[in-house]
Amino acid sequence: MAGSSYGTIFRITTWGESHGAGVGVVIDGCPAGLPLSEEDIQKYLNRRKPGQSKFTTQRKESDQAEILSGVFEGRTTGTPISILVRNQDQKSRDYSNIMNTYRPGHADYTFDAKYGFRDYRGGGRSSGRETIGRVAAGAVACKILESLGIQVMAYTKSIGPVSIPEQDYDYSVITDNTLYMPNNQYAEKASAYLEECIRSQDSSGGIIECRVDHMPAGIGETVFEKLDANLAKAIMSIGAVKGFEIGDGFQAAKASGSQNNDAFSSNSDGIYKETNHSGGVLGGMSDGSTIVLRAAIKPTPSISQPQDTVDKDGKPLSLTIHGRHDPVIVPRAVVVVESMTAITLVDMLFQNMAARMDKIAEFYSKTR
Amino acid sequence: MAGSSYGTIFRITTWGESHGAGVGVVIDGCPAGLPLSEEDIQKYLNRRKPGQSKFTTQRKESDQAEILSGVFEGRTTGTPISILVRNQDQKSRDYSNIMNTYRPGHADYTFDAKYGFRDYRGGGRSSGRETIGRVAAGAVACKILESLGIQVMAYTKSIGPVSIPEQDYDYSVITDNTLYMPNNQYAEKASAYLEECIRSQDSSGGIIECRVDHMPAGIGETVFEKLDANLAKAIMSIGAVKGFEIGDGFQAAKASGSQNNDAFSSNSDGIYKETNHSGGVLGGMSDGSTIVLRAAIKPTPSISQPQDTVDKDGKPLSLTIHGRHDPVIVPRAVVVVESMTAITLVDMLFQNMAARMDKIAEFYSKTR
Amino acid sequence: MAGSSYGTIFRITTWGESHGAGVGVVIDGCPAGLPLSEEDIQKYLNRRKPGQSKFTTQRKESDQAEILSGVFEGRTTGTPISILVRNQDQKSRDYSNIMNTYRPGHADYTFDAKYGFRDYRGGGRSSGRETIGRVAAGAVACKILESLGIQVMAYTKSIGPVSIPEQDYDYSVITDNTLYMPNNQYAEKASAYLEECIRSQDSSGGIIECRVDHMPAGIGETVFEKLDANLAKAIMSIGAVKGFEIGDGFQAAKASGSQNNDAFSSNSDGIYKETNHSGGVLGGMSDGSTIVLRAAIKPTPSISQPQDTVDKDGKPLSLTIHGRHDPVIVPRAVVVVESMTAITLVDMLFQNMAARMDKIAEFYSKTR
Amino acid sequence: MAGSSYGTIFRITTWGESHGAGVGVVIDGCPAGLPLSEEDIQKYLNRRKPGQSKFTTQRKESDQAEILSGVFEGRTTGTPISILVRNQDQKSRDYSNIMNTYRPGHADYTFDAKYGFRDYRGGGRSSGRETIGRVAAGAVACKILESLGIQVMAYTKSIGPVSIPEQDYDYSVITDNTLYMPNNQYAEKASAYLEECIRSQDSSGGIIECRVDHMPAGIGETVFEKLDANLAKAIMSIGAVKGFEIGDGFQAAKASGSQNNDAFSSNSDGIYKETNHSGGVLGGMSDGSTIVLRAAIKPTPSISQPQDTVDKDGKPLSLTIHGRHDPVIVPRAVVVVESMTAITLVDMLFQNMAARMDKIAEFYSKTR
Repeated sequence: MAGSSYGTIFRITTWGESHGAGVGVVIDGCPAGLPLSEEDIQKYLNRRKPGQSKFTTQRKESDQAEILSGVFEGRTTGTPISILVRNQDQKSRDYSNIMNTYRPGHADYTFDAKYGFRDYRGGGRSSGRETIGRVAAGAVACKILESLGIQVMAYTKSIGPVSIPEQDYDYSVITDNTLYMPNNQYAEKASAYLEECIRSQDSSGGIIECRVDHMPAGIGETVFEKLDANLAKAIMSIGAVKGFEIGDGFQAAKASGSQNNDAFSSNSDGIYKETNHSGGVLGGMSDGSTIVLRAAIKPTPSISQPQDTVDKDGKPLSLTIHGRHDPVIVPRAVVVVESMTAITLVDMLFQNMAARMDKIAEFYSKTR
Repeated sequence: MAGSSYGTIFRITTWGESHGAGVGVVIDGCPAGLPLSEEDIQKYLNRRKPGQSKFTTQRKESDQAEILSGVFEGRTTGTPISILVRNQDQKSRDYSNIMNTYRPGHADYTFDAKYGFRDYRGGGRSSGRETIGRVAAGAVACKILESLGIQVMAYTKSIGPVSIPEQDYDYSVITDNTLYMPNNQYAEKASAYLEECIRSQDSSGGIIECRVDHMPAGIGETVFEKLDANLAKAIMSIGAVKGFEIGDGFQAAKASGSQNNDAFSSNSDGIYKETNHSGGVLGGMSDGSTIVLRAAIKPTPSISQPQDTVDKDGKPLSLTIHGRHDPVIVPRAVVVVESMTAITLVDMLFQNMAARMDKIAEFYSKTR
Repeated sequence: MAGSSYGTIFRITTWGESHGAGVGVVIDGCPAGLPLSEEDIQKYLNRRKPGQSKFTTQRKESDQAEILSGVFEGRTTGTPISILVRNQDQKSRDYSNIMNTYRPGHADYTFDAKYGFRDYRGGGRSSGRETIGRVAAGAVACKILESLGIQVMAYTKSIGPVSIPEQDYDYSVITDNTLYMPNNQYAEKASAYLEECIRSQDSSGGIIECRVDHMPAGIGETVFEKLDANLAKAIMSIGAVKGFEIGDGFQAAKASGSQNNDAFSSNSDGIYKETNHSGGVLGGMSDGSTIVLRAAIKPTPSISQPQDTVDKDGKPLSLTIHGRHDPVIVPRAVVVVESMTAITLVDMLFQNMAARMDKIAEFYSKTR
Repeated sequence: MAGSSYGTIFRITTWGESHGAGVGVVIDGCPAGLPLSEEDIQKYLNRRKPGQSKFTTQRKESDQAEILSGVFEGRTTGTPISILVRNQDQKSRDYSNIMNTYRPGHADYTFDAKYGFRDYRGGGRSSGRETIGRVAAGAVACKILESLGIQVMAYTKSIGPVSIPEQDYDYSVITDNTLYMPNNQYAEKASAYLEECIRSQDSSGGIIECRVDHMPAGIGETVFEKLDANLAKAIMSIGAVKGFEIGDGFQAAKASGSQNNDAFSSNSDGIYKETNHSGGVLGGMSDGSTIVLRAAIKPTPSISQPQDTVDKDGKPLSLTIHGRHDPVIVPRAVVVVESMTAITLVDMLFQNMAARMDKIAEFYSKTR
């Protein structure tokens, strides 16, 4: 089944394995006339590149993006944009210990169950390198959103037990720390926790939060293609994400209606909500408030301590995984969450253009 | 934009408003040869019907399903199954107080923002009645799953602050209480809490949990069409759902890798996981364990106490909503969660059939 | 597999069998604010209704359309429009002679090959009645096109050997004759030919032509979603259509480049083509000229003369089909061709709205 | 709008312009376990490569395919297969004469109408090089079909006025002549006609026919996703195709029912049709006979003789196109027709696997 595409009008198709020739994406449905360069892409890729701190894998990858099509004289042409990133660090390792073994928390067993065999060199298609195509496309989506005045910003809300309360957020410091946290003190605490994880040959999960400002109201469809339903799919499709919520999310389940309802008010700019328990979405459509969503990321499954498992014939064994592993995926996944959010918003904005007969008639009246 | 369809191979299209002629669904891609009657559908519809307890709206609706096509001599024919439920309780009420007013927590404002106007009689397309089409289709999906030996079961895990710990589950009592909770003592506590909500003219949210047993391993795609990503979209597309998680979900974000990884083991039946923190999905594919997912439901936005809001011109006013409102949506949404889960599983099972060349060749070798 | 939907942004889903409870369509993605009544639909349905001339089946069907959703106070709301037509003439006939027999030219054999059994009462899902849903949706699509200033017009170009040369077209007389031909003299010749067919217990095919005026240039996508490729699928999806061409079509295969190329010219209204061998499409996009397409319709397979065939066990037999059969499908299919063309154009127009970044920015600048 | 993908379960996404860095395809949904090498792809690409005869452009392109993903140890893994072909012959030419000019028969004008500007170096996305991705994917599709015992074969039926009657077909000589005609004498006549075209600075169209043998019966859906409707879209999506027919096609429009109906018969192998006017499809589903389809190809629009046209400001001018142009596209398009046919058949075969409940139950009973 074809499952490597995402989006309807603005659609991306990613491909590539961790230890094959490379990874990439085809972005189809990007409108014509958007200024775009390889540097625009590279800026985003660099945010997920390995080797940036002691908490990320030391695999050597320059992750250099090449735009193969769809851009002419610095602008998109409306035709598909193909972006290629060659894999560099494919040193021929000895895979004999994982080749026939099912690593706990990894997709080895499910790949075999589905396909009968698998590319056993690293994570194959389930590797974190799969997200390179998403991020390259996310860079394009963010440029489109910027030109419409919409900002998307993701950051680390928590690492393991270290969680920043909303009142302590300082967005201006997010890039000051390698964990992409909006509070440097909490970032230090989280770093200390991660050092501890490394010492105990263990790993940590965390929560990524993403905010979208200046989204116009009324975007998203009312039933299956709700804005939040699509965001949920987009975010849950990222490897290692185990939960998604919007606005108050699981807290709303404990609240009363009088607490959870957001009162409408108005000023000279128009109608707005006084609070934002809804997280910017009502009835599947954006409500003009900031969109706020969260993703729960599980701890890195690759840990150095010995683990009980079986080989493909069911024979029990103790597995010790050597090599390069992030003790936490969260900081590198921040830009992936931002990218999938942006891609979803662009697609929903484009889908929304045919919502009203008067606007369609106005649109085409100018064509003649 | 067309947003009223869900699924690829097994696809449903729902239609209808709360106060129009009726609601319904077209189920396309249902395989031929499934025994199906109107009673099969009715059993599921009755589980979400209003008027079943003091905690659900007293609107009078028989919700009688008519199968209009796709079934011949008691079996599905492979052609689309159209199911119609006429609305009965459309008493012409006085809508003047909500016609131009934006009810907090409802989609009135976003409908106007998107479409320029709206069907102001009740919730229109955003009404809970929209889920009738989903449940009718869910009944069909569950019959398909049953014939493959797969069971789907949803229930209420929590109502407001009253939450049942997993060790206290007793699945056998779920239908003993009108809240569909797997523990009668907790159901009593929850009832008391809801009585309190009614007295204070307020409402409550809650959490629905759904389990899928005997799902074969390897179902779901590896990137965007992950099994859990599709389940997330399916569940988040239900009105009032604000959060989704699978397995340990948001708890996994606080756990360490050594806690969260599920060790593989084997016995005479084959390979299995000793624990199930993953919730039955690894790398987007079912892993052979029970699938466990949860949906966070917000409190009913319609509450009787006066609320501050504005009309469509932005003029402030105090709104008091009269009429029939559930103090909690959760119990009636249980069958909706079960239905959307089943529909998603059927579609992913069908999509998976072309995953392996050897199985395809075997499938078609018998056709000749 | 779900194959009963057509379109991406403007999407229709049809359902129903010839001898079930009814037939219908759900139109999803119709923009809000289009004035729409049941009479709008009925006008189109009446054009394909049986019993209008001696060349169409005498089956008694009022084909009365009921709009069940998506319209409020005379205008579309943006939500799905469900339209139901009850079957009336389902007299319980004796099907014993066709129940287990494969009628030549019909889909009986292929239905059994695919599904293992079939609804043997008449054509089932392959009946001409399946087109009712298409025509109801076509009526809506034509209203949308009209409000954009675009006209779609189909007519009968030929019946069997009687073909009207283009220079003899008089569009004003199309509805003067029951064959929908743009020339009354040719219509008389064609009628005479059909009388002959009836006498010889035989049937006739023919060609339907469709023209679209005032289509803006640049609509359609450049590769797989070419305007003409989508039109081809739309038209070939109508039962009994065996060929499709656009512009000079198969004649272009015999022409030279200097004959077939259309020179560009210009006047005060802008650029235009001096000739229209292309049929209004270049590179998959509309080129501003009239779109001209043709559909080849095969002769009605149901004929009264005895035919050799086999039953489902392969036993040879001679089959005589009694009952109501059109000696020619063409006149009743005219409105179906027009409908499928209109539905395709609306969808491609909507898809095109996100083609250019400057137009998107302008569209959303007015939303804020 | 995303229009560069084709297929549902077996889906291809092509990208690339004639004078950009390269062209390519991502094949998603290819089942795991198919033996595949770059040579398998190359064999098909070589059939459309330029420079093979005096009737094809002398552009120098090795068209070397690189498989970037989805194949491991000589077999497909089930993950997307990305194939890249670098453009080599991108000599920086002087485009000043076509940069602002609308070439008759080309998509220059429609590109500008849609996108506001275009990549004016050669045909850009509308170049014949766009078909490289289709053919690379076609090679994979043909391998899948072969492993199911299904053969696809396309050839040139006519060039301009030179058309081979079916009784003179000799499939064994198709690759003996550079025109891929199943009769060497007709190929010589066609060559003489093309020499004449070159002398008169003109070009020729033609007809490609494609046959599919051993297709199982019952493949294809009954309404919009008819097998022939999808084949029509697939073929009409190839640049320069102006018409499509299946079986007797436009001839059927002139025939009577008694001529056009194919009688069913049976022998020890089962039921079969004695004739094949239907071209192997009844009611949108394969009927067990050979599938026969035809594509009408227009003459190459690039001709050396001066042509009247306008520039983008509407200023009239006489255009003379220099450079490399095939006097006929047909021979190089043969493998493209074969490819698009094969891709469509694979997708429809995969979609069909969920048609019957008994076969689904049998399929999954073996998984446990």
